[in-house]
Amino acid sequence: MIVCLDLEGVLVPEIWIGVAKKTGVAELRLTTRDIPDYDALMKRRIGILKREKIRLSDIQRVIGTLRPLPGARAFLDRLRAERQVVILSDTFYQFAGPLMRQLGLPTIFCNWLIVGKSGYIEGYRLRQRDGKRKAVQALRGMGFEVRAAGDSYNDITMLKTADKGVLFNPPDKIRRQYPRFKTVSDYRSLYRELTSAS
Amino acid sequence: MIVCLDLEGVLVPEIWIGVAKKTGVAELRLTTRDIPDYDALMKRRIGILKREKIRLSDIQRVIGTLRPLPGARAFLDRLRAERQVVILSDTFYQFAGPLMRQLGLPTIFCNWLIVGKSGYIEGYRLRQRDGKRKAVQALRGMGFEVRAAGDSYNDITMLKTADKGVLFNPPDKIRRQYPRFKTVSDYRSLYRELTSAS
Repeated sequence: MIVCLDLEGVLVPEIWIGVAKKTGVAELRLTTRDIPDYDALMKRRIGILKREKIRLSDIQRVIGTLRPLPGARAFLDRLRAERQVVILSDTFYQFAGPLMRQLGLPTIFCNWLIVGKSGYIEGYRLRQRDGKRKAVQALRGMGFEVRAAGDSYNDITMLKTADKGVLFNPPDKIRRQYPRFKTVSDYRSLYRELTSAS
Repeated sequence: MIVCLDLEGVLVPEIWIGVAKKTGVAELRLTTRDIPDYDALMKRRIGILKREKIRLSDIQRVIGTLRPLPGARAFLDRLRAERQVVILSDTFYQFAGPLMRQLGLPTIFCNWLIVGKSGYIEGYRLRQRDGKRKAVQALRGMGFEVRAAGDSYNDITMLKTADKGVLFNPPDKIRRQYPRFKTVSDYRSLYRELTSAS
């Protein structure tokens, strides 16, 4: 069995919100709830960063001060001792690095930022479209039973494609909209749902 | 980019040979060089273990005394800080566990032993046929550039399917037979081959 976990909201805080807080640039709080088109949202963020003269290295310094959610590391260590775990995230390797070190270097499948010579973010490259769902599909194709946990709309296709999907601390609206998924709110329950006998 | 590594011979010693040595049951040294049909070889091994009254827990105790190859942990830690790594192995999760802990819990895709109530190994379940090659194929399908390293015949299809394949300390015969793959014999060179710019 393999376990696929979302990153932000499940193991670490929302990265862009952390960056917005710590840089004081409130506009960076914009999410797909505000601008549903992800590509338009990313272009907007990249424009804001350039305007504010914030380079990738500045953001990485800020991300380096973020900490995993309380209990996340212990939960993940325990889970990884028993099961194979892959983190499936829409973030970027250049952002995830400092957080992965704090989590004990679990495997993560995410995306890449394109950075210019002057150190500014110029664009991004998705690993593949609908990457979370397709990764679950590929892992199932490799002979694994897959269990998955996430907290948000961008996790739903991943949870549906897995043999078992679990919602971890989702917003009420998502919980009500997807009653087919068990919802849990602490790591002990999440561990149980992800490791119980099939 | 993602790096796929063989386990035995690359990061840890050959497990069955270690078990043969430590249990004193020389017949357990048999490999696919002696019995080319893998299923026949596994059935033979399972028969020997039962005859010798060796349970899975006995083997696990023996494997617990095996150590990663000198320098393997440092190599892997350094690699995992820079790249995503998945170990692709023909061994079994029940054997790999104690070694994975010593290696810092990297992600490993391998197979399962079927264990009876009395604790004896009764059979095995492959994740999928030709699992190393198919895993590399699936990872490439997920949008990754894949580099792979191995030391033996069962790694060749994996190395061929990867964007770049490297042989690590292979037997001379394999090195001569597959000159298309770069051969290296120390972790510093292996790290360089697996991380250099494309």
